[in-house]
Amino acid sequence: MSKKEKTDLLPLKVYSLGGIDEIGKNMTCIEYGDDIVIVDCGLGFPDDEMLGVDLVIPDITYLEENREKVRGIVLTHGHEDHIGALPYVLKTLNVPVYGTRLTLGIVENKLLEHRFEEQPRLFCVEAGDVIRLGIFTAEFIHVNHSIADACAIAINTPQGTVLHSGDFKLDLTPIEGDIMDIARLGEIGKEGVRLLLCESTNVERPGYTPSEKNVGRSLDDIFLRNTDKRIVIATFSSNVQRVQQIINISAKMNRKVAITGRSMQNIVAAAIRLGYMNVPDDTLIDINEIRRFRPENLTLVTTGSQGEPMSALYRMAMSAHDKVELGSKDLVIISAHAIPGNEKLVGKIVNEMFKKGVNVLYDSLVEVHVSGHACREELKLMHALTKPEYFMPVHGEYKHLTMHKALAEEMGMDSANIFVSPDIGNVLEITEDDAKWNGSVAAGKVLVDGYGVGDVGNIVLRDRKHLSEDGLIVCVATVDSRDGYIISGPDLVSRGFVYVREAEGLMEQARAIARDVLTDCLDANNQDWADVKNQVRDAMTRFLAAKTGRKPMILPVIMDI
Amino acid sequence: MSKKEKTDLLPLKVYSLGGIDEIGKNMTCIEYGDDIVIVDCGLGFPDDEMLGVDLVIPDITYLEENREKVRGIVLTHGHEDHIGALPYVLKTLNVPVYGTRLTLGIVENKLLEHRFEEQPRLFCVEAGDVIRLGIFTAEFIHVNHSIADACAIAINTPQGTVLHSGDFKLDLTPIEGDIMDIARLGEIGKEGVRLLLCESTNVERPGYTPSEKNVGRSLDDIFLRNTDKRIVIATFSSNVQRVQQIINISAKMNRKVAITGRSMQNIVAAAIRLGYMNVPDDTLIDINEIRRFRPENLTLVTTGSQGEPMSALYRMAMSAHDKVELGSKDLVIISAHAIPGNEKLVGKIVNEMFKKGVNVLYDSLVEVHVSGHACREELKLMHALTKPEYFMPVHGEYKHLTMHKALAEEMGMDSANIFVSPDIGNVLEITEDDAKWNGSVAAGKVLVDGYGVGDVGNIVLRDRKHLSEDGLIVCVATVDSRDGYIISGPDLVSRGFVYVREAEGLMEQARAIARDVLTDCLDANNQDWADVKNQVRDAMTRFLAAKTGRKPMILPVIMDI
Repeated sequence: MSKKEKTDLLPLKVYSLGGIDEIGKNMTCIEYGDDIVIVDCGLGFPDDEMLGVDLVIPDITYLEENREKVRGIVLTHGHEDHIGALPYVLKTLNVPVYGTRLTLGIVENKLLEHRFEEQPRLFCVEAGDVIRLGIFTAEFIHVNHSIADACAIAINTPQGTVLHSGDFKLDLTPIEGDIMDIARLGEIGKEGVRLLLCESTNVERPGYTPSEKNVGRSLDDIFLRNTDKRIVIATFSSNVQRVQQIINISAKMNRKVAITGRSMQNIVAAAIRLGYMNVPDDTLIDINEIRRFRPENLTLVTTGSQGEPMSALYRMAMSAHDKVELGSKDLVIISAHAIPGNEKLVGKIVNEMFKKGVNVLYDSLVEVHVSGHACREELKLMHALTKPEYFMPVHGEYKHLTMHKALAEEMGMDSANIFVSPDIGNVLEITEDDAKWNGSVAAGKVLVDGYGVGDVGNIVLRDRKHLSEDGLIVCVATVDSRDGYIISGPDLVSRGFVYVREAEGLMEQARAIARDVLTDCLDANNQDWADVKNQVRDAMTRFLAAKTGRKPMILPVIMDI
Repeated sequence: MSKKEKTDLLPLKVYSLGGIDEIGKNMTCIEYGDDIVIVDCGLGFPDDEMLGVDLVIPDITYLEENREKVRGIVLTHGHEDHIGALPYVLKTLNVPVYGTRLTLGIVENKLLEHRFEEQPRLFCVEAGDVIRLGIFTAEFIHVNHSIADACAIAINTPQGTVLHSGDFKLDLTPIEGDIMDIARLGEIGKEGVRLLLCESTNVERPGYTPSEKNVGRSLDDIFLRNTDKRIVIATFSSNVQRVQQIINISAKMNRKVAITGRSMQNIVAAAIRLGYMNVPDDTLIDINEIRRFRPENLTLVTTGSQGEPMSALYRMAMSAHDKVELGSKDLVIISAHAIPGNEKLVGKIVNEMFKKGVNVLYDSLVEVHVSGHACREELKLMHALTKPEYFMPVHGEYKHLTMHKALAEEMGMDSANIFVSPDIGNVLEITEDDAKWNGSVAAGKVLVDGYGVGDVGNIVLRDRKHLSEDGLIVCVATVDSRDGYIISGPDLVSRGFVYVREAEGLMEQARAIARDVLTDCLDANNQDWADVKNQVRDAMTRFLAAKTGRKPMILPVIMDI
């Protein structure tokens, strides 16, 4: 945008509530005056420190406080890290949600598992559509990704166009639908993009991401060379194109296809219902029917490609699947790449399957998976098409964002026009003249554990970590403080520390120490129970650390009657 | 070995106490009549389920029961997974230990941290040496690896030669010392190898492992392009050749080199003392002296390449290193590959350093690391040189062992002559006529936690896992069972469950439930306290699961006075 005369325009505010310096939990907000539009509403997965936590969702305090401004949530695609927080967010912020057909199909499935006081409002769009959201308009632009019906979104604002890439790759031979709408992105670039928000997942990888068709060719070969085996393929349930390819090859090779795993069954059903998958007649059978067919005429498509405990493939590997028993007549293909952190889980089930004599193929051996994200050359293409005035890399750890900045500089961008946010919640303010960081909104991680949303915090996690490393000892005594003697105890109860039956001497010594401290306190008429407990705790901790090199949590409980 | 007439020979027994279907904890035993020789004595690292455990060592019950047979431990090289259990094993089984100079130098360092009733007996050998161990002889054969002074070991037995590859690669341009002794391996192959034990770490990787010199070339380039920066390089402390290359390049570029991190300082000191490193005069400086030099004239070599918490690089990244403050004038090179399971730790410090504006290079971006293990073509070379009659793949998860078996079959071996042990402890029995699995010896994982060796078992780990996921609630009451009333309590103390100040209502309800159950039991004159506790536990668990979706550990403590 060339410099204009001063107008009455307000500044445009752009801030992320997730997806910056973290993987997942993607959520970006665009605010102008009294209007806010939200791009995506994803969940994140707990890191190793978040013991016992099930999910992580964005902190939307700021949006709740400004609920009258929020015009809606626009979704780029149907992956968990882009839609997974919707069931939680819509409970307290029931705003309209806009997405393509498959995306909303998956959202609807998720919402069924939750109860809402007010019914969520979902509005279906398709690529090419432009919708109005208060002062904004949002245009959905077709991109390729590892799920069908993915879009970039161009948001028109009084301060010019903000283009959000969503998750994308360029696939020149896609399985279903069109090539990414390069032409429209180029047009928008020509019209002028003030700010590009572009994903950064694969910025460490050179070149181009291979086409989904490559996987089809590999699978073709594998099916041809294994006509004597039952074939079991694990992949991401949302990768509808991958499943479509598996079905096509199976049909060609006269194999029936059975689907196993709840999320796989749900998404395949939705994809067929919505017309995103095309299944030849008599190809799909129920998993309960597999006994009716010879193993070499069967393909099983399953969840569990990340080694998830209790997924269908996990249960097969551990001989706990009620319909499928794996053996040396089976070929298992893991058509996925282990997400960082899942390597060991995947390795575990691969080992178990090899022990059963199963033939196992995975992506370090053959090309049975391709990424859904743009590699460096594709990212450059996005920059070249959109020619943004300002750029904010999104969807990545800090290292990815930094490298994406360097990539943009290689493309000729001035480093002063690139905004790498050091944290979520920082507000990028764009005026006619410039763009700069200006303040921040509330942002953070809300932990979901069981039905609890936000009730597990740092203190609880710190205790869980302590308990997980050294266990605990409860030290209970009943005392008569008036007459200054111990009525009962102290008794010790330990969990996760040592196997007590083999450590009776140690526990007896610890008990004696607790009793001595308690007796001394009672003799001294010390009735500051917090202090007495601290003394018991300290004495026991010192003793046990010296004896065992461990520091179990000590919980003294003193009842004075 | 061609078929012979029946002789009076006994069967040869070969069994692993570690390194089979697991990474690390390598230990293989060879037994004939009244003689046992042990190859390596390594430690393993705890997996995700072993909460709070520091180390894993082999179960040597069988060797302790047959201590009079054990002639000694021969070491292939000085890595933790080959020598790390020595301090624990030698305390109860003080047998002679044989290894090359650098290997024993590292062992000595480790033993200093432990106390022994009887002093360990270490005997130094060099490649080419043959030592006698009871009825056996053991010949040390030079191989390349990511630590200097590594050997394969050929053990001559009455049933022919058993060749253990150790960890190896073929490096045709090694930094220090010779190329792997291909000629001697070929000779031994010609003389006849009855059994090959060969490592399997990189069996999933095609081709050849690049030479250590490649890393030198990359570092050369990087140093040339960064003459204005201080350079910090993290690598494995045991990779003496890598450190040598860094020192050489630094000296050439007029940089002083400072070493930081305890294990790095120890090993570099040992390597210099033993003549394995060659440091140009005035190159090495103390870390305390770095302020005396301009940053661009400094190279810092540091531990922490795996992101280990509290390592020197970790402390630098977290601004907690007392001598080094990182910033935008620094280039940090992580000259290592993240071991599976450590990816997130490494990612964390890389992100932190990028946040400080540090320039960071790691192996997904440039060739700053090569593996120390043989890839597929090198494994084939080992098979081609040694032409074994029988083959047992070692050092790998089950998937690696299975693939190594397939590789040997590709080389023409009969699958009946390849022995993939489904578990440690299985005994391979070799006679003049054949080889077969026959029985097993005690084998397992002994967990080391603090000073405790073997006192943390399944029950303790199960409790730690339970505690780590949902925390606990202690429910304490003092009762008078004779008169049937509650004197005090029940009081609840919780840790790692919910933040109590924000959940007072919930805790009050849980307390009421415990009180009701207790009152009912007292009214019914139930004095079976185990039963009363179970009733309290069940009622509280049901209530909390319904309310929160979580199942904290409930510990009822009832004192009857």
